[in-house]
Amino acid sequence: MQSVAHRESFLATVIEEAEKIDRYMREDIAQLSPDFDGLLLEVLDYGLFNGGKRIRPLLVVLASRLCGKTDADSYRLGAAFEYLHAATLFHDDIIDSSETRRGKQSVFKKFGIIAAILAGDFLHAQSMSMVGKYSGQAGLEVFCRATTGMVDGEFMQLRNAQRHNLSELDYYDAIMGKTGLLIAAACEIGAIYGGGNAQSVKALREYGVHLGCAFQIIDDLLDYLGDPGKTGKAVGNDIAEGKMTLPLILTINAADHTDRNRLMHVLDNQDERVRCFDEVCAIISRYGGFDEARKRAEQEVENAFMVLDVFSEKKNSLELNVLQGLALYVLSREK
Amino acid sequence: MQSVAHRESFLATVIEEAEKIDRYMREDIAQLSPDFDGLLLEVLDYGLFNGGKRIRPLLVVLASRLCGKTDADSYRLGAAFEYLHAATLFHDDIIDSSETRRGKQSVFKKFGIIAAILAGDFLHAQSMSMVGKYSGQAGLEVFCRATTGMVDGEFMQLRNAQRHNLSELDYYDAIMGKTGLLIAAACEIGAIYGGGNAQSVKALREYGVHLGCAFQIIDDLLDYLGDPGKTGKAVGNDIAEGKMTLPLILTINAADHTDRNRLMHVLDNQDERVRCFDEVCAIISRYGGFDEARKRAEQEVENAFMVLDVFSEKKNSLELNVLQGLALYVLSREK
Repeated sequence: MQSVAHRESFLATVIEEAEKIDRYMREDIAQLSPDFDGLLLEVLDYGLFNGGKRIRPLLVVLASRLCGKTDADSYRLGAAFEYLHAATLFHDDIIDSSETRRGKQSVFKKFGIIAAILAGDFLHAQSMSMVGKYSGQAGLEVFCRATTGMVDGEFMQLRNAQRHNLSELDYYDAIMGKTGLLIAAACEIGAIYGGGNAQSVKALREYGVHLGCAFQIIDDLLDYLGDPGKTGKAVGNDIAEGKMTLPLILTINAADHTDRNRLMHVLDNQDERVRCFDEVCAIISRYGGFDEARKRAEQEVENAFMVLDVFSEKKNSLELNVLQGLALYVLSREK
Repeated sequence: MQSVAHRESFLATVIEEAEKIDRYMREDIAQLSPDFDGLLLEVLDYGLFNGGKRIRPLLVVLASRLCGKTDADSYRLGAAFEYLHAATLFHDDIIDSSETRRGKQSVFKKFGIIAAILAGDFLHAQSMSMVGKYSGQAGLEVFCRATTGMVDGEFMQLRNAQRHNLSELDYYDAIMGKTGLLIAAACEIGAIYGGGNAQSVKALREYGVHLGCAFQIIDDLLDYLGDPGKTGKAVGNDIAEGKMTLPLILTINAADHTDRNRLMHVLDNQDERVRCFDEVCAIISRYGGFDEARKRAEQEVENAFMVLDVFSEKKNSLELNVLQGLALYVLSREK
């Protein structure tokens, strides 16, 4: 495990890199400014610069560096991932009627649905153009496949919203669409840009899949166990929406007839889902559903470490340490 | 001018090519099918296959052929333009709350806002990937610039909806965003794909700009003078929305103080805009605003012909004849 000093230097690196990425994003937007409408630019400024940790661009930069290339364009390529990520958030907030994002009004709430759709479309196109420019057709295809896969995942979620018999496999499909695909694409495209060989590209893509899955499992755990004072949002949202995540799926698989029926009854009744949150938590706890879900996240992080073994000659490099640090950070996060 | 026989053979070619493009689109979607959600595929099928004339793909194919390349991939590249066009329609219908499209329910009305946003995003990404694949980075940049330009145009429209002092220049900016950019991009990218030299690429792009502008001017004229039995929609929509198009702009520029004030008064009052449609038409007629707007469209078509002069060695080729035929067709269309 990391020491406190280690952890602090890791966090300092992440913050420093995030600031650097922000500078490249601002430079890019400033370059666009003379050509585009003032309101569009205002929406972009509001929606893009919100103190995000810029994890996806950071992954691009680190993957590229690990494969041997460190330059300014790797940051510009990274910015494309933040653009696409923001575009999906603009549209997701409409889809989920989410009024807030990171403690302020969502783009859709502040500027209206029209501006949110259009600004998302703008960032979409801008990101694709940048990915094509910096990583060529190979990178563009990975990027577009991640995008269409994310849309497909949203359609699956629409369909699954009415289903309360999801398997673990369904869950992994869902979190890949929600988080894994774009994170894996950031790692893979960074590796392609960095000139990595097939083995390196594959390893970094797999690292991304494991990192993304670990991240989402912990995110879903925080929806049950998080401290609202730290996460900034109430617990129990998933269950209130009837959404099945890993702790619940594992519990239903393990539960006896009575407990399973009770859980299914709660899931099928909207009022009960809010009223019986504590009872659901108690049942999940009893069957070790939270512990088991956490173990899965730990296993993902272990796998993320393992696939990076191919970079053993870079053992003490900053880039490898930060990639490992990110995986550990996912497990320790409280918000 | 074209003879009746000429015109009929032109229309037969357009229909034949549209069917061919539809076959390539169906083939592409079928290839995607195993990987994607059933509802997503249903939305795509509904939204894409609606008897459209496939003018944008046709322009890609013709421009490529004029520059020397005729092959199956030019149709696949063309399909990308129909995908992007459909994506913008899916999103536009949400933005404009349009419940119908080509005489049936719009995607947004039939499948809901979530499906319409997501399916648009899907086609967006799919189209960019195809354009990158077939026309390389040069084509992708033109395509993405057209897309961001279209979004910018929509923001401009949002802003202009409150402005009733638009100039002719504002109008041309607006119709470029709405129609011209994508049509010009289809011609330019077709030329790039076809291996055209810089002069050919420029000529075809300019042809597209003129064609697109002529198309939109006639479209806006039909909103005043069209036969609802043929166009399938009532007249007077633009004025009811307070939208200034060319006939009105030209009239306001030419009108005396009294008439100008009267027109501005109507524009500024929502009830009057519907009630006074006939009166507005009469004022525009009196100042020759309709005739003048039509002359501008004819000038655009003349310019479209002129820029094609660089292809004089292809004088009697089918591709040149159809490009010219399309420009003439725009002037004669009644729906």
